Amino acid sequence: MNLYLKNMKIFKDKKIIKTKGRYDFIDITDLVREVIKKSGIKDGIGLIFLPHTTAGFYFNEDESGLIEDFKNFLDKVLSEEENYHHNKLGEGNATAHLKNAIFKPIFEFIVEDNDILLGTWQKIFLVEFDNTQRQREIFFKIIGE
Amino acid sequence: MNLYLKNMKIFKDKKIIKTKGRYDFIDITDLVREVIKKSGIKDGIGLIFLPHTTAGFYFNEDESGLIEDFKNFLDKVLSEEENYHHNKLGEGNATAHLKNAIFKPIFEFIVEDNDILLGTWQKIFLVEFDNTQRQREIFFKIIGE
Amino acid sequence: MNLYLKNMKIFKDKKIIKTKGRYDFIDITDLVREVIKKSGIKDGIGLIFLPHTTAGFYFNEDESGLIEDFKNFLDKVLSEEENYHHNKLGEGNATAHLKNAIFKPIFEFIVEDNDILLGTWQKIFLVEFDNTQRQREIFFKIIGE
Repeated sequence: MNLYLKNMKIFKDKKIIKTKGRYDFIDITDLVREVIKKSGIKDGIGLIFLPHTTAGFYFNEDESGLIEDFKNFLDKVLSEEENYHHNKLGEGNATAHLKNAIFKPIFEFIVEDNDILLGTWQKIFLVEFDNTQRQREIFFKIIGE
Repeated sequence: MNLYLKNMKIFKDKKIIKTKGRYDFIDITDLVREVIKKSGIKDGIGLIFLPHTTAGFYFNEDESGLIEDFKNFLDKVLSEEENYHHNKLGEGNATAHLKNAIFKPIFEFIVEDNDILLGTWQKIFLVEFDNTQRQREIFFKIIGE
Repeated sequence: MNLYLKNMKIFKDKKIIKTKGRYDFIDITDLVREVIKKSGIKDGIGLIFLPHTTAGFYFNEDESGLIEDFKNFLDKVLSEEENYHHNKLGEGNATAHLKNAIFKPIFEFIVEDNDILLGTWQKIFLVEFDNTQRQREIFFKIIGE
């Protein structure tokens, strides 16, 4: 019998973030780092999940002009001026749902040396797509050793 | 020697779904729940994969108006009226390929208490993008304990 | 005590790919297969990650007309003719950043029989979105047994 013992762990956490309404971009990179540190997992795979249908992630450079370009792109392909069926229900947040559906509220990452593996310019932002301030939950699950 | 034994499991499954042609939205949330129950895994990470190039997932609220808005968005950015090179091959499903490429036929989820972790309004749909009825395979892989 | 011993492994690798500038599509399917073979992992989940903000993945059929359609779609929704704030910084690669942000430089896959699980027509391409030739890193992490 070939015994091969790995100190495999599964770690979970949950964080709460308050957003200020549409297009609030909140850099959660340090928060993710903090959760990984707490997990003690050195080497593995992690997943961040939002149990929400009107928020998402932006994963790219933290450059204000680029974030403006990203918003303009979203407003162009999903204009607030159009008539959306979902807005007949009264909340007026159809585009927020569609943005969430396009980007999916899921983000996977590699854990290396008890840290997230990222390139120099990569930052993870939680993005509020809804039109009011909201309390958002972020669920973490990390598997590794 | 520090022995740390986890009852780690890897579970796989495959389901077959018949679709009725373009924009058939099939709620597979209960199917995913059923597969997780069967796996016996209480805590972990899972992945759903479609080995197809003309179908995808919609992950958001099950609201008919919103689903209509989602279709309208797709038809606007990928109009059937345009000339696509791929359609010279005869199947006429270029937009279906492009929608699959944009959304990627992969969906990851957190397993918690032997169930998928989801927000109140979140449902997972398999979406047929192709223009004929098809038989679709859904592959599951779950790792955890 | 119920001892259940799995030969769980975590495998990592890194590959370097040179690209020839905007819209260089490089089929990395065989490279991914090679890394999985090397890992020795038969059954599991894998993740490919690019530590870059101006490149991404195309996951669909290797058909030149379709790849042309995909480029045309990108050029339509993210026209090079528009004025982007990020381009004031001088690199002229705002659309490359936005394409990376839309598609996310992350790709997950199922490992089955020491190979990637793929449909007949599915190929994974690294896509250069930036306007100059670049050296790109691909990080792999595979968990399984």
